[in-house]
Amino acid sequence: MIHHLKGQLIEKNPTYVVIECNGIGYYINISLHTFSLIPDSEAVSVYTHLQVKEDSHTLYGFAEKSEREIFRLLISVSGVGTSTARMMLSSLQPREVTEAIASEDVATIQSVKGIGAKTAQRVILDLKDKVLKVLGDDEVFVSQSNTNKEEALSALEILGYNRRQAGKVVEKILKEDPESTVESIIKMALKKL
Amino acid sequence: MIHHLKGQLIEKNPTYVVIECNGIGYYINISLHTFSLIPDSEAVSVYTHLQVKEDSHTLYGFAEKSEREIFRLLISVSGVGTSTARMMLSSLQPREVTEAIASEDVATIQSVKGIGAKTAQRVILDLKDKVLKVLGDDEVFVSQSNTNKEEALSALEILGYNRRQAGKVVEKILKEDPESTVESIIKMALKKL
Amino acid sequence: MIHHLKGQLIEKNPTYVVIECNGIGYYINISLHTFSLIPDSEAVSVYTHLQVKEDSHTLYGFAEKSEREIFRLLISVSGVGTSTARMMLSSLQPREVTEAIASEDVATIQSVKGIGAKTAQRVILDLKDKVLKVLGDDEVFVSQSNTNKEEALSALEILGYNRRQAGKVVEKILKEDPESTVESIIKMALKKL
Amino acid sequence: MIHHLKGQLIEKNPTYVVIECNGIGYYINISLHTFSLIPDSEAVSVYTHLQVKEDSHTLYGFAEKSEREIFRLLISVSGVGTSTARMMLSSLQPREVTEAIASEDVATIQSVKGIGAKTAQRVILDLKDKVLKVLGDDEVFVSQSNTNKEEALSALEILGYNRRQAGKVVEKILKEDPESTVESIIKMALKKL
Repeated sequence: MIHHLKGQLIEKNPTYVVIECNGIGYYINISLHTFSLIPDSEAVSVYTHLQVKEDSHTLYGFAEKSEREIFRLLISVSGVGTSTARMMLSSLQPREVTEAIASEDVATIQSVKGIGAKTAQRVILDLKDKVLKVLGDDEVFVSQSNTNKEEALSALEILGYNRRQAGKVVEKILKEDPESTVESIIKMALKKL
Repeated sequence: MIHHLKGQLIEKNPTYVVIECNGIGYYINISLHTFSLIPDSEAVSVYTHLQVKEDSHTLYGFAEKSEREIFRLLISVSGVGTSTARMMLSSLQPREVTEAIASEDVATIQSVKGIGAKTAQRVILDLKDKVLKVLGDDEVFVSQSNTNKEEALSALEILGYNRRQAGKVVEKILKEDPESTVESIIKMALKKL
Repeated sequence: MIHHLKGQLIEKNPTYVVIECNGIGYYINISLHTFSLIPDSEAVSVYTHLQVKEDSHTLYGFAEKSEREIFRLLISVSGVGTSTARMMLSSLQPREVTEAIASEDVATIQSVKGIGAKTAQRVILDLKDKVLKVLGDDEVFVSQSNTNKEEALSALEILGYNRRQAGKVVEKILKEDPESTVESIIKMALKKL
Repeated sequence: MIHHLKGQLIEKNPTYVVIECNGIGYYINISLHTFSLIPDSEAVSVYTHLQVKEDSHTLYGFAEKSEREIFRLLISVSGVGTSTARMMLSSLQPREVTEAIASEDVATIQSVKGIGAKTAQRVILDLKDKVLKVLGDDEVFVSQSNTNKEEALSALEILGYNRRQAGKVVEKILKEDPESTVESIIKMALKKL
């Protein structure tokens, strides 16, 4: 629900920052990676992940969308909670995490506190295909400057379609009419899929 | 609880927009229909539906109140969740959805990904009477410029009274005193119903 | 958590208003009593009650603190939910509700839709003592311009002490030092109680 | 999630204040200690603790971070809820609470309404080591002007490491390179721990 927070930097610590938006001070947990990227300037902005539980609402903040993307992939693995994911992104650079997963480097993943051999293997098993996508896009899983094709593909994926299947249908649509808008590509794809 | 969000459009994608209100960026899921209606201008406003679950708070946004009204009717049907409802409103125009329900057109409803024959029939069974109301009102289920009668009727319905029954009582009251205010119509109706 | 909302009146209907604070539009359920008191001006303010449930966050709004006080007393009675409480405050004036409870007038309470004989009796049984307090204070259960004694008494009551018992102790403290501040009255009372 | 609230003081009572931020009035429960420290000026700021439960969201406010720190330690003890913790901080000064715990003074703790002998002993058992830390730091558990060492130690503790163990590793790192930045201290410590 909360995509990002932009406001006045009140406190900056290696594990959390406090950002004030219109009088409301938000306590945002961060990784060491994000700590190193957040400037000491007055106005800052971080991408956020809101964790809602029965007895708590907790915010996690990221200087880059791609780090948040990796964080969300990690916590989707059973046995990896938000603290362990934050720990991974504090012990290793985001790129080191994705490369370790892509290259099935169990030892590097297991070197992180709180991650045993089993969890490390599960991380690789669950995420190997997915991180290749994140590795491929420099800035962001779905970047703004994407072609119509990429935007349509990402939308179809969010709507629950398999990316490879959707890719074939989108290719055919673009072959017939390379000038199709994002909207019409999706409309036609929804009919064909 | 959150009726609408008005702020700066930060991101616009076929399946979501990010709107910033005073430094807080809201991630709002949208349908393709709403995507086609949201202008690329800086300031935008969408009607919202806040879905609260034990482990998440999710916002859905709509360019028109009537689309939100249909979305809320759809998710009231057991077996139709927010993703399926959003899918319906991405595959079909809102008016196509209401007309398919009103005319008991199972095939059109079933053509939407994630909706089988049984769910399609349940959608028609549960919503047929209700969508006729939405079809009748161009802009909004309860529009601002309604006559006192319509406003009183809508209020009595929200207070839990059957619309047809309440309608008879309201008619009698207006016959006795056509100049009655909304408030007095409701007061008297509450006493008679 | 949300004590009141002050902002731009976007919509005003007999059963709800929409108030916008900095781009966020809040949907606030109201009674007919509050509807009659809310001016049609641009800027409005209502006292609020936030109902948190596992699957919803719902706001109720009141033009007067005393109406909210009565609403909260009503929903503390088992069998009386927020809709029934709002119905009572739409069918009867707040003062009519408190007087019916104080005078054990079952018939009047039972005249409200959704309230049977048993619930009406339970309302009287549970609330009779409490509403006498609300009846006694014109504006508010705990008003700003209270004497130190009343403020201290209200604080001790919120801290969990019985009002009558706390009253005796506070009387003694004030007898010894009529000039005691609110704070010192409470401090000494906490030691004696 | 909500670290502090800064806005217009609308109401100030011994047990609660109402602070308005941009039209949203927040009801914040406070202790008598905080009541005595909050100025009667228009603009105020309090550190907050947001308690999230299935059926309520409740805010507690503190004039000092150290009082909030003690409050959070107290509610971490089984049998001590937010009301009892607030009661303790209304009956005793924060420093009296920490000293009573540090000096195992059961009688003083038991003098607080709602705390029996067993709970008093559990408070001491659970918190004795932790309050010594709070006693040691005048203003704040993790203060801004901390040395790199203290900031790194606090970060490592939040990341789940034992403070004493982490302390030894940090000492070694600083011996080798007294000029290490907070970030590099933590990075190296994460590798060694």
